[in-house]
Amino acid sequence: MSTPVITFLTDYGLDDAFVGICHAVIAGICPEARIIDLTHGIPRHDVRGGAVALRDAIPFAPAGVHLAVVDPDVGAARRAVAVRAGDGRLFVGPDNGLLWPAAAKFGGVVEAVDVSHSSLRLEPVSATFHGRDVFAPIAAHLAAGIALAETGDPCDPGSLVTLELPHARHTMGALEVAVLALDRFGNAQLGATHEDVAALKLGEPVGVELANGAVHQARYVWTFSDGASGELLLYEDASRSLALAVREGSAADRLQISPGDEIRLRLP
Amino acid sequence: MSTPVITFLTDYGLDDAFVGICHAVIAGICPEARIIDLTHGIPRHDVRGGAVALRDAIPFAPAGVHLAVVDPDVGAARRAVAVRAGDGRLFVGPDNGLLWPAAAKFGGVVEAVDVSHSSLRLEPVSATFHGRDVFAPIAAHLAAGIALAETGDPCDPGSLVTLELPHARHTMGALEVAVLALDRFGNAQLGATHEDVAALKLGEPVGVELANGAVHQARYVWTFSDGASGELLLYEDASRSLALAVREGSAADRLQISPGDEIRLRLP
Amino acid sequence: MSTPVITFLTDYGLDDAFVGICHAVIAGICPEARIIDLTHGIPRHDVRGGAVALRDAIPFAPAGVHLAVVDPDVGAARRAVAVRAGDGRLFVGPDNGLLWPAAAKFGGVVEAVDVSHSSLRLEPVSATFHGRDVFAPIAAHLAAGIALAETGDPCDPGSLVTLELPHARHTMGALEVAVLALDRFGNAQLGATHEDVAALKLGEPVGVELANGAVHQARYVWTFSDGASGELLLYEDASRSLALAVREGSAADRLQISPGDEIRLRLP
Repeated sequence: MSTPVITFLTDYGLDDAFVGICHAVIAGICPEARIIDLTHGIPRHDVRGGAVALRDAIPFAPAGVHLAVVDPDVGAARRAVAVRAGDGRLFVGPDNGLLWPAAAKFGGVVEAVDVSHSSLRLEPVSATFHGRDVFAPIAAHLAAGIALAETGDPCDPGSLVTLELPHARHTMGALEVAVLALDRFGNAQLGATHEDVAALKLGEPVGVELANGAVHQARYVWTFSDGASGELLLYEDASRSLALAVREGSAADRLQISPGDEIRLRLP
Repeated sequence: MSTPVITFLTDYGLDDAFVGICHAVIAGICPEARIIDLTHGIPRHDVRGGAVALRDAIPFAPAGVHLAVVDPDVGAARRAVAVRAGDGRLFVGPDNGLLWPAAAKFGGVVEAVDVSHSSLRLEPVSATFHGRDVFAPIAAHLAAGIALAETGDPCDPGSLVTLELPHARHTMGALEVAVLALDRFGNAQLGATHEDVAALKLGEPVGVELANGAVHQARYVWTFSDGASGELLLYEDASRSLALAVREGSAADRLQISPGDEIRLRLP
Repeated sequence: MSTPVITFLTDYGLDDAFVGICHAVIAGICPEARIIDLTHGIPRHDVRGGAVALRDAIPFAPAGVHLAVVDPDVGAARRAVAVRAGDGRLFVGPDNGLLWPAAAKFGGVVEAVDVSHSSLRLEPVSATFHGRDVFAPIAAHLAAGIALAETGDPCDPGSLVTLELPHARHTMGALEVAVLALDRFGNAQLGATHEDVAALKLGEPVGVELANGAVHQARYVWTFSDGASGELLLYEDASRSLALAVREGSAADRLQISPGDEIRLRLP
């Protein structure tokens, strides 16, 4: 049998032992599991940013158990869930929409279990660290081969919290889009794809209008090196989303934008 | 035989190759070992913070070799040691108290070896990177099955440097406590437990008096979501220590406190 | 057969999922490979800093596949390459000099393959994330046992981009050296070795003259603890390079130096 894989994504950061302790818990329950840390650098409590990162990373990961924790309401009434997507992948995390876009990409949720009171939790369950006490143990037991239905109380997939990412909206001569995420290089991923700017040709100028009315000139290119140093560029990023970058610089700094901001792309 | 586990905790950070090189050294000596990085984000030279993090993480880790390096006196006279705790766990690191609270939790040190001049070190031993040249090789050889006594010169467990963490002290109507550690969310772990405030009821107010005399109002709660946004909260954290948090904020920023600071909790 | 090892070094940082996605890609192609993350904290686009870190780390790693990506010209004309060093180690990365000093240390490049158009790439190949689409797949296939020549188009090792690190130059009573890299502790690695200051005795003073003419007094020591708190120290670091440090402080902050800066060491 092949080695079970658990991918792991959180907003825990690496400055503390949160991630390491979850690894330790998993190693204790399913020593043969291979853990792939997708990232632990999701901005604190940014459920949408975590959902986008998970959706964009999972297609490159072996099928397995996909553990994700961005959980601003830990300890409150939100449910903890384990779900199966149409293609068989298993997702474990809080029921706050975090898992939704990734599961949707793989056939949607076809089976769901409420693990909030699972007998597989570590006792005593803390009020603030469900990654350690609830989510990691469930993921590890699933990797070890327990049936999904055995991890808690089956529930209606239709009862799960959904998360719909913003789509681009065409208006007169412009495309209204949301900033989905920023990476460490200051590149801004937008809620739009190549198809939304199908008439745009490589090399053409695009006006980037911010919420405050300021307009920055960008150019539509294939890759960073098609721009001059310091030039604002619109391009298709590696997740196949439209994105803004500054060559050898930071679009986030240049435009002073944050995830969730709305901008207008003025097409030629 | 099961896969040997080495847990690993340092103040090396992840910006440089220090941690990666230690992994490489271990992989060369004991390829079958599984390394669990607990954290490498201990504040530079913060032996007490590292000791607390190690003590709080190890209970969740499989028994094995526990490698820890926070070593402000590297290259000086301090000893390098490998020790066995009462329950059989092995700890490797500098003899500066770092390993002490974790070992104490597992039965105390029952066997100790001075590995400062171990024949298992990587030669030439550098003056500044004993993680690579001393501690990682010793940990890897222990994981590979060498007997503890063979790693260096047996020494008296009673000769080890100890580290006693501060306890809470009851004074008239108040509890004097030390700040043990801050996490990336700005939550402040205190040197006190639930039992130290046994008379306090959930929901009751607590005055937090700082060294400069300023008093902040907090409330004793079960979890973050029991507070209002921006409210200062006293709660039992996942390590079962009392801790201070600001919901959707940072207690460290609000109170301007640092590890080692003393505060007074004014109980109702 | 022993477990194949892939070491991995980049400037991707850990805030985003770039590194995790590369791990996922490797796990999909060569599940048995063990990945050793040397570091992902190379300063953005710092090819020379990455080359130095790789050169200094590889001697401590098991022979295997050594994947490195610091790639300011991703998507432009630069080649992607896989090469074999004289001792058999394989290196994969952009052909921009990043791999050169490490390969030189292990016998130089004896076989080279241009993998820019390799059939082993992930399709569609993105314009901006060749770590995921080109380099990680090639490294994984090599770890899985494919012959180097099968990964792309063999090319002349003499056609590779080289990177010669600056050497120290003796002038009248001084040694002119370049700052190669800074670590998180603010220690500054210099392009010079112990042999360049062979006449210098431990404890002797050294003048550190900056480009702006300012001169700081340092002392040549064996290790940090030979200096007083706050003292500027010249020492041989763990990579056997000369380096500058401030005990319990930061040489980078004290001297306001950056990688690439030239300084003069005034010897007694």
